[in-house]
Amino acid sequence: TGDKQKQKPPPVAHYNLNNVTTTPNPLENRENILILTPMARFYPAYWDNILRLEYPHELITLGFILPKTKEGNEATRELQKRITKTQKHGPEKDRFKSIIILREDIDPPLVSQDEKERHKLENQKVRRAAMAKARNSLLYSTLGPSTSWILWLDADVVETPPTIIQDLASHDQAVMVPNCFQRYWNEEKQMMDERPYDFNNWQDSPTALDMAKKMNPDDILLEGYSEMATFRTLMAYMSREDGRLHEEMPLDGVGGAALLVKADVHRDGAMFPPFAFYNLIETEGFAKMSKRLGWQPVGLPNYKVYHYNE
Amino acid sequence: TGDKQKQKPPPVAHYNLNNVTTTPNPLENRENILILTPMARFYPAYWDNILRLEYPHELITLGFILPKTKEGNEATRELQKRITKTQKHGPEKDRFKSIIILREDIDPPLVSQDEKERHKLENQKVRRAAMAKARNSLLYSTLGPSTSWILWLDADVVETPPTIIQDLASHDQAVMVPNCFQRYWNEEKQMMDERPYDFNNWQDSPTALDMAKKMNPDDILLEGYSEMATFRTLMAYMSREDGRLHEEMPLDGVGGAALLVKADVHRDGAMFPPFAFYNLIETEGFAKMSKRLGWQPVGLPNYKVYHYNE
Ligand SMILES: Nc1nc2c(ncn2[C@@H]2O[C@H](COP(=O)(O)OP(=O)(O)O)[C@@H](O)[C@H]2O)c(=O)[nH]1
Ligand SMILES: Nc1nc2c(ncn2[C@@H]2O[C@H](COP(=O)(O)OP(=O)(O)O)[C@@H](O)[C@H]2O)c(=O)[nH]1
Ligand SMILES: [Mn+2]
Ligand SMILES: [Mn+2]
Repeated sequence: TGDKQKQKPPPVAHYNLNNVTTTPNPLENRENILILTPMARFYPAYWDNILRLEYPHELITLGFILPKTKEGNEATRELQKRITKTQKHGPEKDRFKSIIILREDIDPPLVSQDEKERHKLENQKVRRAAMAKARNSLLYSTLGPSTSWILWLDADVVETPPTIIQDLASHDQAVMVPNCFQRYWNEEKQMMDERPYDFNNWQDSPTALDMAKKMNPDDILLEGYSEMATFRTLMAYMSREDGRLHEEMPLDGVGGAALLVKADVHRDGAMFPPFAFYNLIETEGFAKMSKRLGWQPVGLPNYKVYHYNE
Repeated sequence: TGDKQKQKPPPVAHYNLNNVTTTPNPLENRENILILTPMARFYPAYWDNILRLEYPHELITLGFILPKTKEGNEATRELQKRITKTQKHGPEKDRFKSIIILREDIDPPLVSQDEKERHKLENQKVRRAAMAKARNSLLYSTLGPSTSWILWLDADVVETPPTIIQDLASHDQAVMVPNCFQRYWNEEKQMMDERPYDFNNWQDSPTALDMAKKMNPDDILLEGYSEMATFRTLMAYMSREDGRLHEEMPLDGVGGAALLVKADVHRDGAMFPPFAFYNLIETEGFAKMSKRLGWQPVGLPNYKVYHYNE
């Protein structure tokens, strides 16, 4: 390696964080986007949706983290297949700037990825702590000095508007969340319908704040459990058929299904707390941390993305 | 670029976090070290000391962040001069694997880097919040999937044992702090002497915990100010002439002058809170966060590094 080094001295990279813009018009300013996805299962529709994104793919880096389980191995293989197809054999314009795949080094706390099992209240704290660590590992390993925006996108988000990056960024907000719905077959109406899916996007309530005050600092408040009625204002229920697509509402808690974050928010230190932070954890704790850093999360109740229906 | 891309498809990088070891014997296991330094001024003795490190330089990546002030410009120029000398013209074995230089994008809260000015109590909260953000930006932009350890080393730490990386790592602790002293001219004894410098390495006291309990959650406790007597056990005062070099003590607060951290601690999410976290900020808040994540910080009262004497 001695000779090699002499020919090519080790690189010194200079970055002026000031020159990395994060503007309401990322496309015109050719801003780099990092799409980060924790992935337990591979859904072809997720990849199809990513491929349809109208933001220039050469400005998009994809980052994945998958568990080291059997299911994670299977998902990695399927993901890799689609990647190879796109990056090697697909049309030029489909190819992404670069792709990073991380495998977790810890055993996931739960074996089952079954929806009922993973949503059980008593399983939530360890599960969400593990998810927080996975998100942090992915973020810390992929965020670079020239990233402008991070789009968090869950592996089971199978449908977004193709202009989601431009649309969310146009608000020039630090932390931006669309409303995550789910399509389903409505037996009654005998037709396809949609319903709210992600209940982590909320505005705080006096009840919830009061509950937190009485809790042990290590305990966490969870949303969407009847055992724990918080009376928070849930963005999931705030969408209006006749509402403006770009109507904003400030949020105190956010979900991670789809979430656009200015890179500086993460750079300043906002991460996904894997412990109770103001009695909040993971993405909801992240919202609180962003607020503490001076960045108010904002949601778009009428701007929808869709979660897979198991 | 179309043709270029066809010849060389965009890279897909695979990383198994499980294969990145972090062991008591990093040298034998060829573990990658990231040395991170926030730098307001350039001290030649800092660079000389780095050059003397006996850990293989080809396994060391250096990362710097400098403020965008006039002083920061000056320091960047001097740093760059020494880098060029080492990486281009110096002996093979001195050259580091890679070097990343970041420039901050925010105006520093204080103009003066003068010791008296920067240590004033009322200036500390904004100053340390800014330092925390600088550390986080540096960390988030440089930590990669194959990093095993992070050595935080302040720009004014001008003397460490050349084996500091191996020595600290040999304890196999997640967060490891040597004792930071300062050499000075002792007028009385008419000879060179040394005195404790960094008071951020401490064990908690009932008084300090009580003070925190009565504080507003946004306020911070600071160490080393007579206006605020905490009665904490300070590692600075725990060194013994006849003590064992490798004697350990558990710590609740740590300083950042020299600090060895297992990469997984940061990956899990432990950062430098730029806000009051349990009434602690920056490196002291980091210690608390590490503890919350299950990693107990440990100090070595008799293992010394030396701070520049202004
Ligand atoms: N790396 C990793 N990703 C996971 C794990 N469990 C779930 N995920 C992914 O994390 C995201 C959120 O998890 P999910 O189970 O869908 O949460 P829910 O829809 O809120 O119930 C999805 O993209 C999952 O594929 C895990 O143990 N490790
Ligand atoms: N990037 C950056 N580094 C700074 C700034 N202020 C201080 N530093 C560096 O941060 C480290 C700690 O700061 P210092 O003033 O030495 O703290 P003290 O010794 O605890 O008083 C040193 O390496 C400084 O050179 C700043 O505004 N920006
Ligand atoms: Mn999901
Ligand atoms: Mn200093």
